[in-house]
Amino acid sequence: MRGAVLHAPGDVRVEQLEDPRVVEPTDAVVRASATCVCGSDLWPYRGINEVTEPTPIGHEYCGIVEEVGSDVTTVRPGQFVIVPFIASDGTCAHCRAGYQSACAHRVGVTGAQAELLRVPHADGTLVATPEVPSAELLPSLLTLSDVMATGWFAAVAAGVQPGMTVAVVGDGAVGLLGVLSAAQLGAERIIAMSRHEPRQRLATGFGATDIVTERGDEGVARIRDLTDGVGADAVLECVGTGESMDQAIRSTRPGGGVGFVGVPHGVEITGRQLFSTMVRLHGGPAPVRRFLPDLIDRVWSGTIDPGRVFDLTLPLDQAAEGYRAMDERRAVKALLTP
Amino acid sequence: MRGAVLHAPGDVRVEQLEDPRVVEPTDAVVRASATCVCGSDLWPYRGINEVTEPTPIGHEYCGIVEEVGSDVTTVRPGQFVIVPFIASDGTCAHCRAGYQSACAHRVGVTGAQAELLRVPHADGTLVATPEVPSAELLPSLLTLSDVMATGWFAAVAAGVQPGMTVAVVGDGAVGLLGVLSAAQLGAERIIAMSRHEPRQRLATGFGATDIVTERGDEGVARIRDLTDGVGADAVLECVGTGESMDQAIRSTRPGGGVGFVGVPHGVEITGRQLFSTMVRLHGGPAPVRRFLPDLIDRVWSGTIDPGRVFDLTLPLDQAAEGYRAMDERRAVKALLTP
Repeated sequence: MRGAVLHAPGDVRVEQLEDPRVVEPTDAVVRASATCVCGSDLWPYRGINEVTEPTPIGHEYCGIVEEVGSDVTTVRPGQFVIVPFIASDGTCAHCRAGYQSACAHRVGVTGAQAELLRVPHADGTLVATPEVPSAELLPSLLTLSDVMATGWFAAVAAGVQPGMTVAVVGDGAVGLLGVLSAAQLGAERIIAMSRHEPRQRLATGFGATDIVTERGDEGVARIRDLTDGVGADAVLECVGTGESMDQAIRSTRPGGGVGFVGVPHGVEITGRQLFSTMVRLHGGPAPVRRFLPDLIDRVWSGTIDPGRVFDLTLPLDQAAEGYRAMDERRAVKALLTP
Repeated sequence: MRGAVLHAPGDVRVEQLEDPRVVEPTDAVVRASATCVCGSDLWPYRGINEVTEPTPIGHEYCGIVEEVGSDVTTVRPGQFVIVPFIASDGTCAHCRAGYQSACAHRVGVTGAQAELLRVPHADGTLVATPEVPSAELLPSLLTLSDVMATGWFAAVAAGVQPGMTVAVVGDGAVGLLGVLSAAQLGAERIIAMSRHEPRQRLATGFGATDIVTERGDEGVARIRDLTDGVGADAVLECVGTGESMDQAIRSTRPGGGVGFVGVPHGVEITGRQLFSTMVRLHGGPAPVRRFLPDLIDRVWSGTIDPGRVFDLTLPLDQAAEGYRAMDERRAVKALLTP
């Protein structure tokens, strides 16, 4: 099969690789219908995370089950499934509590920008759609494997409730789908922080009621202005830098929540800041599996259309161009077709 | 009147001071029935917080209203009131949301180890008991001005719910009343972390089901052992050091909550730790006013007896001995009678 391999910062190549096979009786092998490039793939691509050897890359995936191990009972060959970016056993205490991304036997999906993918813990991980979907549903279903579920978790972790005022820090695909998630969860006012006109339009399309272009101190001041000096009820931190976390905390009212889903790079928080702001903090890698049945329903019924975040579609062989376009912010998110 | 003044680390003197008077029409002046020494008073007493000039000290207080300003409508002279350690206007957005300790016009109470106390924002701050209480209720009612309400907030902020397993880090008065709070909120199992036998007995009396004497890595390992490797559902951090916060976070299950109420000294948290542990964090100065009506009911009806944390009672004139006894851990908490 063909698959994308990161050789060094800036050097992604699609190569001929060995076909993955069922190894454990709990495995499944899934053939890609679509895959894509994640903002977090850019950390190693940019050399911010070290690349020590050629590494198959990618972790967002959906497709048709090709083969299952002898213990797999919940999915069967021919079904279309969403693959969360973390495989989970579905039976441990953390899985049962809905924190499948902290599963005691979790396995991070990798090498998913490829034609075939081996998925461990198939029963605890995969969720099948009612039928094999039509092509136009593919982009939206693909987002459920990570980016949409991550935006959703940001909103849930921030404690978004009907009627709230919500601010979203970050206008990448996760932030944009955080806007959509907040809208679905009933937020009355959604302030998207973005200085890029095409992303502002997407945010507005997903339900943003206000756009704030300022950042840092000025961004915080704008949120305070827009909320009569009170701060937002809930803030979604969808970047992962020290600056974005600080901005999120300072934009939140006392007792309000910050949901953070950007993989933290250099984020340090002092006890004093949390103590004095009285902000609730919750985040981490999204427990995608918890949200899948609900999110599949919302996509299947046409209630949400998160696939709109893809503004570039390329054949898998041109994965390198997808990385370049996202790195240079020419594209919000690149979908790859096998 | 007489009142305690901190002159320098280790140097508390009770002196003749000017009587406080009503200054603003929203003020009340309250005559002490009882006051006490707080663990947080020990920070400046020990010189960890700087002492630059002689400062009237103390912030836990209850007593009889002596005089009210012309705008005060909810309390009147002769009533017995609890004085939260932060005065709040009761009308701003933060107060209305139940975060009175973040009130837009908050005033920290100080100089409360004294015979008389001026309380600003009397209507938004003071809560009167049904009648003037008998002497035996005084210690328990006094705890509601800070220490009991702070333990309660730790439990609420940690998200304690019926049936949960809760761990409490810190065996000072706040930690001990955190145990009592968790029990009142329905926790099934309460693990108190303490190596001091008299405090262990108090913890058990307040509802602790398990005692862990280990600290740091070993303490975390013990909590994991006691919870089948899962971690506690909720952890109350009642100390305020980097070590105690780290221990609290690492003792909590993914998705579980840490409620922290110890004033942080040198607490730094990395985004990575919060991201990877998926622990919810919430804390700050307790919004005492929010909890007062409920907590007064519980004391008045004899449901709770938090006054048991006082193991030393002294006349106000001997405040210095109260500080010494707590500093040397000879006493859990010292009550001062005027």
